[in-house]
Amino acid sequence: MIDLHFVPTPNGHKISIMMEEVGLPYTVKAYDMLAGDHLKPEYRAINPNARLPAIVDLAPADGGEPFAVFETGAILEYLAEKTGQFIPTDLRGRSLCQQWLAWQISGFGPSHGQAHHFIRYAPLGQDYGVARYRNEAERLLHVLDRRLGEAEYLAGDYSIADMATWPWVRATRAIELSLEPFANVRRWFDAIGQRPGVQRGTSITNAPNLSSLRPQLNEQQWSNLFGENMLASARDA
Amino acid sequence: MIDLHFVPTPNGHKISIMMEEVGLPYTVKAYDMLAGDHLKPEYRAINPNARLPAIVDLAPADGGEPFAVFETGAILEYLAEKTGQFIPTDLRGRSLCQQWLAWQISGFGPSHGQAHHFIRYAPLGQDYGVARYRNEAERLLHVLDRRLGEAEYLAGDYSIADMATWPWVRATRAIELSLEPFANVRRWFDAIGQRPGVQRGTSITNAPNLSSLRPQLNEQQWSNLFGENMLASARDA
Repeated sequence: MIDLHFVPTPNGHKISIMMEEVGLPYTVKAYDMLAGDHLKPEYRAINPNARLPAIVDLAPADGGEPFAVFETGAILEYLAEKTGQFIPTDLRGRSLCQQWLAWQISGFGPSHGQAHHFIRYAPLGQDYGVARYRNEAERLLHVLDRRLGEAEYLAGDYSIADMATWPWVRATRAIELSLEPFANVRRWFDAIGQRPGVQRGTSITNAPNLSSLRPQLNEQQWSNLFGENMLASARDA
Repeated sequence: MIDLHFVPTPNGHKISIMMEEVGLPYTVKAYDMLAGDHLKPEYRAINPNARLPAIVDLAPADGGEPFAVFETGAILEYLAEKTGQFIPTDLRGRSLCQQWLAWQISGFGPSHGQAHHFIRYAPLGQDYGVARYRNEAERLLHVLDRRLGEAEYLAGDYSIADMATWPWVRATRAIELSLEPFANVRRWFDAIGQRPGVQRGTSITNAPNLSSLRPQLNEQQWSNLFGENMLASARDA
């Protein structure tokens, strides 16, 4: 049994999709980030970085105490190794999977995330930030499209690299990037979207708000997500 | 033999340090990003994402053709697995190493990188971006400091997670963040800095420019690093 500490964001859906794909039993622990649930000491004992999602494996393979894992890239590798699924076992396939997974968690995800921030959450008038991240978000879609023109999935077969990337591609509508110019991405996106595990993994909780409207946060909610409360929780450890 | 496609940035130094630590023979291939070396088709055949560093393993363990690896997180995992060094082999240690490595490549590195961009490269007056990333860069130093208060190194023993993080901590002086409040980070930073492999890995090429002065880029150089040339190279694949 695995506890999945969850919010219905693209990062959360990486892991809910993986849980459905591997078929391990799991319990969803839902969080309200606007209320600051992620800043509580009991969650920071699970994820010292105070971001969601994270998992706690209640029955790790070594038979010991429950084991907490944070960072989506590490969670996906942990679950792939635990189940022997969705990561190739040969040298090159395995590394390709790690390469595209690393590309997603260090590049595609953070850059698209900053585009979401500047377009949807930042005070109006941040034209430089909006242009910077929209530019990079578009560049990364070109990189993805080229890769998917030479391989059916990022690492050849469907893998954790695809599960990490798909939810962030799904979210591009909220930053007003059209997938229309990216034919290979669309082919891949539609194929993955038809997988039953992906459909279950994105429907077990409320869908994320992917409207392009700017969410209205009050001062406290802003502070919990982006401001002083987030910093103070780390400072006052 | 391994070819290391290199620039003397914090990301470049992650890999030059690892090469020195594992003791594999390697050749440095130096790049000039201001001149756009990273955008050339021959480099994009090695790294489709057009960022540095990358490696080409001329003698991969499967005995086949040379094998290119991009993304520092994936390069570090590849070299650790190739040599059986600097990643724990037990379930928990291995995952902890993957967790803190993922935290560096997806959080600490990108956020500090954006702080460098807004403080050193962006047009003056981007107060929102400067504050946003300086805030997050500081928060992540607190997270690092807390971890290093409970463990000597990020994953227990010295590992690829430390090698990924150390060069970015070294670069904090350029974004005017003092390590003074972070006693555990300073202890860890000094200990790693005394390792011969780390000293060799950071001295084989010109040191990065870590002055807090704002580099002066002409239009072409800016475009190669951050602008239209970078985007166009992906678009026109």
